Amino acid sequence: MAEKTGVCFPEGFKATGINCGIKKEKKDLAVIISDEPCNVAACSTTNRVKSYSLLWSLKNIKNPVRAILINSGNANVLGGKNGWEITCEIMEKFADVVGVSTRNVLFASTGVIGKPLPQNEILRGIEKLVPMASETGGQDAAEAIMTTDRFPKQIEIETSIKGKKKGSFVRIGAMAKGAGMICPNMATMLGFITTDAVISKIALKKALTDAVNDSFNMITVDGDQSTNDFVVCLANGVSGNRTIHQDTDDYKIFSESLSEVCTFLAKKIAENGEGSDRLIEVRVEGAWSKKDARRVAKNIAGSNLVKAAVTGAWPNWGRIAAAAGSSCTRFDPQKMKIYIGKYTVFDCVSCDIDEKLLRQELSKNKVVIRVILGSGKEDAVAWGCNLTEEYVRINMEKE
Amino acid sequence: MAEKTGVCFPEGFKATGINCGIKKEKKDLAVIISDEPCNVAACSTTNRVKSYSLLWSLKNIKNPVRAILINSGNANVLGGKNGWEITCEIMEKFADVVGVSTRNVLFASTGVIGKPLPQNEILRGIEKLVPMASETGGQDAAEAIMTTDRFPKQIEIETSIKGKKKGSFVRIGAMAKGAGMICPNMATMLGFITTDAVISKIALKKALTDAVNDSFNMITVDGDQSTNDFVVCLANGVSGNRTIHQDTDDYKIFSESLSEVCTFLAKKIAENGEGSDRLIEVRVEGAWSKKDARRVAKNIAGSNLVKAAVTGAWPNWGRIAAAAGSSCTRFDPQKMKIYIGKYTVFDCVSCDIDEKLLRQELSKNKVVIRVILGSGKEDAVAWGCNLTEEYVRINMEKE
Repeated sequence: MAEKTGVCFPEGFKATGINCGIKKEKKDLAVIISDEPCNVAACSTTNRVKSYSLLWSLKNIKNPVRAILINSGNANVLGGKNGWEITCEIMEKFADVVGVSTRNVLFASTGVIGKPLPQNEILRGIEKLVPMASETGGQDAAEAIMTTDRFPKQIEIETSIKGKKKGSFVRIGAMAKGAGMICPNMATMLGFITTDAVISKIALKKALTDAVNDSFNMITVDGDQSTNDFVVCLANGVSGNRTIHQDTDDYKIFSESLSEVCTFLAKKIAENGEGSDRLIEVRVEGAWSKKDARRVAKNIAGSNLVKAAVTGAWPNWGRIAAAAGSSCTRFDPQKMKIYIGKYTVFDCVSCDIDEKLLRQELSKNKVVIRVILGSGKEDAVAWGCNLTEEYVRINMEKE
Repeated sequence: MAEKTGVCFPEGFKATGINCGIKKEKKDLAVIISDEPCNVAACSTTNRVKSYSLLWSLKNIKNPVRAILINSGNANVLGGKNGWEITCEIMEKFADVVGVSTRNVLFASTGVIGKPLPQNEILRGIEKLVPMASETGGQDAAEAIMTTDRFPKQIEIETSIKGKKKGSFVRIGAMAKGAGMICPNMATMLGFITTDAVISKIALKKALTDAVNDSFNMITVDGDQSTNDFVVCLANGVSGNRTIHQDTDDYKIFSESLSEVCTFLAKKIAENGEGSDRLIEVRVEGAWSKKDARRVAKNIAGSNLVKAAVTGAWPNWGRIAAAAGSSCTRFDPQKMKIYIGKYTVFDCVSCDIDEKLLRQELSKNKVVIRVILGSGKEDAVAWGCNLTEEYVRINMEKE
């Protein structure tokens, strides 16, 4: 039985996904439509090479948005001289079929770089796709944005905004695609979040930025972003709650729920890294600054050596120490503590833990590495996945 | 027949290498001794976690140096509370047997992190090692500093310093060890360069820094350095040439030869990356700044995706473009040109090259990737190696 899942969970959103011919058989075209115009907040790649789809969206996120078109199988980047013209034609058609202005639609793409977007397939696909959008199409949409993802990624949260009778509940729903390589290189990441909350544009932007910094940005290494990374949040205000403004109790509640949504999806993406079978969670505590904490956590989670050691269940804490030291100068290595799972493996000296026990910790589906730097009060958590021979095989060959 | 190779090539240097018991059978302890006190220049890791050996050496490089002790099999880092005391005892013994002050000896280590240095083995080893040092021991020394290196790395150069009769020739010799992981993570790299040139300390430092920036520093990614990286150059002045000062013709000649030595060894190290069978040379041209050029070249050479595509001989230039874009914002992607070997694969649009031909280029022992950014006049070259399933296997398991 179809349910209101993912981006369809909040009131007033419809979605669906179909195959339009970019891929052979799998779904490759998705849509999200809101009954009402939405306030929008977004975070996007810092890569100098940006897809035309992203460039289109960045132009429009200041406007009230009504619908998003998403294709997988083609990144719509460096695909030829008339890439921008094709993008505009597709968006004109899309806006027309949805029945809104081109100012009010967004576009996102993921897939192969350097090939022209199959314009005709997408134009025909739009005509079929848009009328099919429904309140139970969240799952289809989540499937249509997948590339090498092993499973679709959705989440739904309902939360109580206190102090109001009508509209005291708001809903957040989301879907994401990641896979790819995750750390340390260019995880093409798309995230679509919908909410029926009434929230000011400024508050929405702040809440999304904070949530993304602690979640999606903690699964990729600084500066290494794909050409298409894009996380967008649409708020259509249908729940009718009192407008959420920054620095209020309501904001805090909304903001925490949004973080929960983003963290859940970020972990799913890391877990789904190509060829990987283990999620690596790196918790860094006692850093001198938040930036230090983030950098150390990401550096450990992104180290090929740490990732390969996890695959072999080899408790080589020296690699963890070296990865920490290479990314931060503000700590004293002799005061550092390193934990693998529940065991202390380094505490000024190497700790004498039975290797069998450590190998068990490193064989779990979720491997937790904790590093206490002892130079301050800032913490951060990063997520990565183990590096396997399968990863190399996948990336040696064409999709 | 034994010859004057590597660090023994310049006049007045002796060296050798033996097994002292750190490793089971392979050589693990090396020495370089100069007849005369040497001017010293060095470049070392920026990792916050530094080996005790490196800390010892950094303390002494301002002094006239007579000898260097090098061990492999143990990194001498985070090995216990009395690591520094053990290091001092070893250096006292070493200086004593060589017959110089502790102020005039250096120490370098490479190997496993977190285990105490086998003090007694090394102390006994020193007594045997030092008397064996000879002018033909370069090869033995180069073997004794190896870890997962597949072959020892040495080079010798003789160059004419013009305008003098006596001492118109100076010699530079060197050995290095690398292997490990090279890009993108913590290649433990040791380089030892000897020369019989008479050169001022300031000129030596400048020449070494320039040479290292264009060679050893172009095979690792910024900020990702091992706990032990160390390149040192000893100049004993035995050739008797007129002192080389900065910004002279003699300096230019010396500096170019030193660069040649460092570049040769850097390429050998990249070629010898764990599990790798192909050297990847990335040439970036037309960058806005030298820093941009270096960053883009290293980012491409260090990208897991590019490295895996080379293994599969898959001409995926999109990955090259994305790696370039993620590390530099000062270029126009539409003006970028990308070459694989002798073929243009991207020139505003994807170029129509027979895939077979590109696969041949990517199957060569040395794969050349060239990227023209078109935003300035600065160039850089970086070296990496391909990523194979073998790399993952090696790093899954204990050495």
